[in-house]
Amino acid sequence: MNVNGIPTRPLRAFPARATIEIIDQTQLPHVLRWLEINDLDAAAHAIRVMQVRGAPLIGATAAYGLALALRDKADTAHLHAAAAQLAATRPTAVNLHWALSRMLAHLLPLPVAERPAAAWLEASAIAEEDVAQNAAIGQHGLALWKDLLIADHRTLNIMTHCNAGWLATVDHGTALAPIYAAHDAGIPVHVWVSETRPRNQGLLTAWELEQHGVPYTLIADNAAGLLLRQAQVDAVIVGADRIAANGDVANKIGTYLKALACADNGIPFYVAAPRSTIDFACPEGADIPIETRHGDELRLISGRDATAQLAHLRQLPASEDVYNPAFDVTPGWLIKALITERGSCPANRAGLAALYPEANHD
Amino acid sequence: MNVNGIPTRPLRAFPARATIEIIDQTQLPHVLRWLEINDLDAAAHAIRVMQVRGAPLIGATAAYGLALALRDKADTAHLHAAAAQLAATRPTAVNLHWALSRMLAHLLPLPVAERPAAAWLEASAIAEEDVAQNAAIGQHGLALWKDLLIADHRTLNIMTHCNAGWLATVDHGTALAPIYAAHDAGIPVHVWVSETRPRNQGLLTAWELEQHGVPYTLIADNAAGLLLRQAQVDAVIVGADRIAANGDVANKIGTYLKALACADNGIPFYVAAPRSTIDFACPEGADIPIETRHGDELRLISGRDATAQLAHLRQLPASEDVYNPAFDVTPGWLIKALITERGSCPANRAGLAALYPEANHD
Repeated sequence: MNVNGIPTRPLRAFPARATIEIIDQTQLPHVLRWLEINDLDAAAHAIRVMQVRGAPLIGATAAYGLALALRDKADTAHLHAAAAQLAATRPTAVNLHWALSRMLAHLLPLPVAERPAAAWLEASAIAEEDVAQNAAIGQHGLALWKDLLIADHRTLNIMTHCNAGWLATVDHGTALAPIYAAHDAGIPVHVWVSETRPRNQGLLTAWELEQHGVPYTLIADNAAGLLLRQAQVDAVIVGADRIAANGDVANKIGTYLKALACADNGIPFYVAAPRSTIDFACPEGADIPIETRHGDELRLISGRDATAQLAHLRQLPASEDVYNPAFDVTPGWLIKALITERGSCPANRAGLAALYPEANHD
Repeated sequence: MNVNGIPTRPLRAFPARATIEIIDQTQLPHVLRWLEINDLDAAAHAIRVMQVRGAPLIGATAAYGLALALRDKADTAHLHAAAAQLAATRPTAVNLHWALSRMLAHLLPLPVAERPAAAWLEASAIAEEDVAQNAAIGQHGLALWKDLLIADHRTLNIMTHCNAGWLATVDHGTALAPIYAAHDAGIPVHVWVSETRPRNQGLLTAWELEQHGVPYTLIADNAAGLLLRQAQVDAVIVGADRIAANGDVANKIGTYLKALACADNGIPFYVAAPRSTIDFACPEGADIPIETRHGDELRLISGRDATAQLAHLRQLPASEDVYNPAFDVTPGWLIKALITERGSCPANRAGLAALYPEANHD
């Protein structure tokens, strides 16, 4: 997509000079700053500290990170070590492991001399497939919205959590793709944006929607239940960091609470994600590793001015008195449908098997 | 109660010099500062801007506010006007209206000359009854904890939301009273403290528990569902701002989401509140007025340094793009028991009627 002629991509690759550039998302929405990433360590760092975040973007960045790692040497031991370093950055989003596995499967059979160039091509293929898949998710989601539109010219009220927009992917977004598709199709849409403590990724979503001209309202995460009870929401849609084979979904902490409130009020709860987020090797949600991050994240309102804020916050609980899990698991039965690049399906084993009959052969 | 010999009361009355002092809770946990309140306007302001907050403390402060209003004149028109000014400060906590009604019922039959002194006495009676009732809630809650203790020496893990400790009452607290009672009885207890966006009252709870020596862990509101699914919580207990006649409970925004997660995981969800919080004239939760507060509250991490923070946050959504309801309603069927000064009861019409047979005569 583009906004005012500027491509909505948070990652740009420059194979000729062996570098990538990313939007530093710890600086948004205060400053839009591009960061040059020139080597493996910088790529791993960017993923770990969340300069890039969002499951699909993490996957694409890891793929390019491997390409960066092969610049000077590309022997098999080095390739495995680089993949291991990238794999260790964040545990929950399976796209990271999916992208690295795909890169290794592609590169290992090749002669060492051919690997560096092939890595850039394969990373680019991963990125472009993500763009195409998310565009397809947008259209499949748009079809679901049309079922919800009970009256002409009525505004569709959609709630989302965290940021699953173009900033979280290579383009389009996952959860936001159907929202952009609706807006671009002339359907009046308004988005309830959940703040998403502790990292406040809701502000990234607000920033994206603002650029795109989509009306939105920011709420505290706590307010989601009241809005759903008051029937002020037609549907909730979120992205995913990992979908287990039985349809359980790991996503940003707090997702499960919104799904419960949807179920209690008969409001559809959708999860949008591309194939790379589905982990057929993971039997169910309880098997998904949940990342725990540093307690200081609860002490900051944003990545900016952390030092000054910490000084003011010195009388708050120490970080050892804080527990900060980054994801939770929403059981499949709370999910109305999974929306992937192939269409939508029930969030269960049969639904996923019908959409991906070849999955056992993965 | 007291901590290190210091009384745990956020409000002190000095009838002889016609003044009260309150802890300015917008400054906590950074600074413990007492504020002198000398007239009606200051009392109304303190309630409105949340220098005092918590349903029982709002009620007691309003009662003293009326006493302050009668210092210079105590005619009936002035009395009604003062009560109306205080009643208009915050809509949801019924304790405010309960205390004002009780003050008016007591004062209106008296000769004008007797009203000022009588007002101080009645406000003091309201305050002391709150202390006694909350102490009783602590003991009734303690009895419920003992049912949960399946093994000796095991730590009881209790989750709470917002602050319903002594800071929210005249003493003891409501939801925290049974936690203090357990700790003081030598039962090992650990508290999961929910941050409580947007006003972060969880930090008040953390501060209270820290003073009292009760172990606790701060979490993002979003993390409550994961902890409940992981069986890391034995019970959730919260206070209330208004309990309808059918047992529905209005409490701090986000309460409903925790109650849903308790129900989904078979974990008891308790609401602790004194008689003054029960509104028998309010048929059900949908009839409770829900306060909406200024959107800027979502832009601040605490009451301190608001100006400096706002400058940094200028690129965040404008307050008109924020919706900030302060309470939600939890239906009675999600609540295991209401805990009042008379004991515990099911959160429904029959349960409340059994505990308060005289209620129809209120």
